[in-house]
Amino acid sequence: MDDDRLSIVLFSGTDDRLQAAATLISGAVAMGRSVDVLLQYWALDAFRADRINKDHGVSAEAGVEGAAAMRRQREREHGTWVDLLHQAKTLGEVNISACSHSMEMLELTRADLDRLVTNVHGIATFMATATGPITFI
Amino acid sequence: MDDDRLSIVLFSGTDDRLQAAATLISGAVAMGRSVDVLLQYWALDAFRADRINKDHGVSAEAGVEGAAAMRRQREREHGTWVDLLHQAKTLGEVNISACSHSMEMLELTRADLDRLVTNVHGIATFMATATGPITFI
Amino acid sequence: MDDDRLSIVLFSGTDDRLQAAATLISGAVAMGRSVDVLLQYWALDAFRADRINKDHGVSAEAGVEGAAAMRRQREREHGTWVDLLHQAKTLGEVNISACSHSMEMLELTRADLDRLVTNVHGIATFMATATGPITFI
Repeated sequence: MDDDRLSIVLFSGTDDRLQAAATLISGAVAMGRSVDVLLQYWALDAFRADRINKDHGVSAEAGVEGAAAMRRQREREHGTWVDLLHQAKTLGEVNISACSHSMEMLELTRADLDRLVTNVHGIATFMATATGPITFI
Repeated sequence: MDDDRLSIVLFSGTDDRLQAAATLISGAVAMGRSVDVLLQYWALDAFRADRINKDHGVSAEAGVEGAAAMRRQREREHGTWVDLLHQAKTLGEVNISACSHSMEMLELTRADLDRLVTNVHGIATFMATATGPITFI
Repeated sequence: MDDDRLSIVLFSGTDDRLQAAATLISGAVAMGRSVDVLLQYWALDAFRADRINKDHGVSAEAGVEGAAAMRRQREREHGTWVDLLHQAKTLGEVNISACSHSMEMLELTRADLDRLVTNVHGIATFMATATGPITFI
């Protein structure tokens, strides 16, 4: 395995899972790894330019108590998963691509996406460089 | 790592995640990889012969808008994740097994399962051949 | 890849996914692998000493029928995912750590956690030893 590479299929679009994904990406980059992210379904929807900074809700399992804890933490940190991804990009190689199939489904064009997303391609292209772990979030 | 192998623990039984899994499997097979899938819990339930072609719902996070987008895409494509899995099987090695523990839980026998499932075994057997990435969906 | 190591980011805190995680860990240990688990968010909440043996609910997709099947199975087996994790620890190397960032979010100290958790650290420390598959549950 090519330990230097981490491939993430990012499917979920709630703030708790997006934060967990951004944390994993940051940790990988801090350890000198390159990270390839493929945005699908509800994660892709969350990366729309007009939505990325909005509230994306949390998983149902968070409950009222969990959601409140997340809100408090966000106020303490003055930062979101979007900020964390921007920071990770300055520290190492993080390629965030949109899945072309999900683009079609959500009827999006590249102009609809936030600038964190630099590419649009299919799953086969993503798999072609997935020489290390493949993590689905 | 044996890059030619991808192991997927398929746990979720909603159509959006099953479609994402089928897409990942297709992409892996297109790149010449072999794929081993272990069906657990709600994914196993979705592979029951009498349910596999029914509507399995979508993740709560999809929302009304997301569910509608999926429906429109399905009509455009005239295909489902079941078709995609059949196609992937003709293109390469895709082994779909049922987890024996989940079989017990759901009180199923092999006769209850769709013919896409070719085996029943425990997690240890699955792990014995999991020489590459292990992806949980 | 170092096939002998499996790294799991455990994010979900519902009993069905915790059971699936414990099953995967058991299978890995049975095959002679070492397993590193990082508890985040709702999974970390489930490992609080005062909550670990309580009912943590199931995924929304389980439905009424699925939840009932899980309850029946638990009665048949006289065991839970907590028991399975204790057993896995006697069979091999299983390191369960709490993510320091999630500790802050949930305002927990080490004294709040069950004794299954032996460490608290950040994602970078976790990634430093993640030489094999990285599975997000």
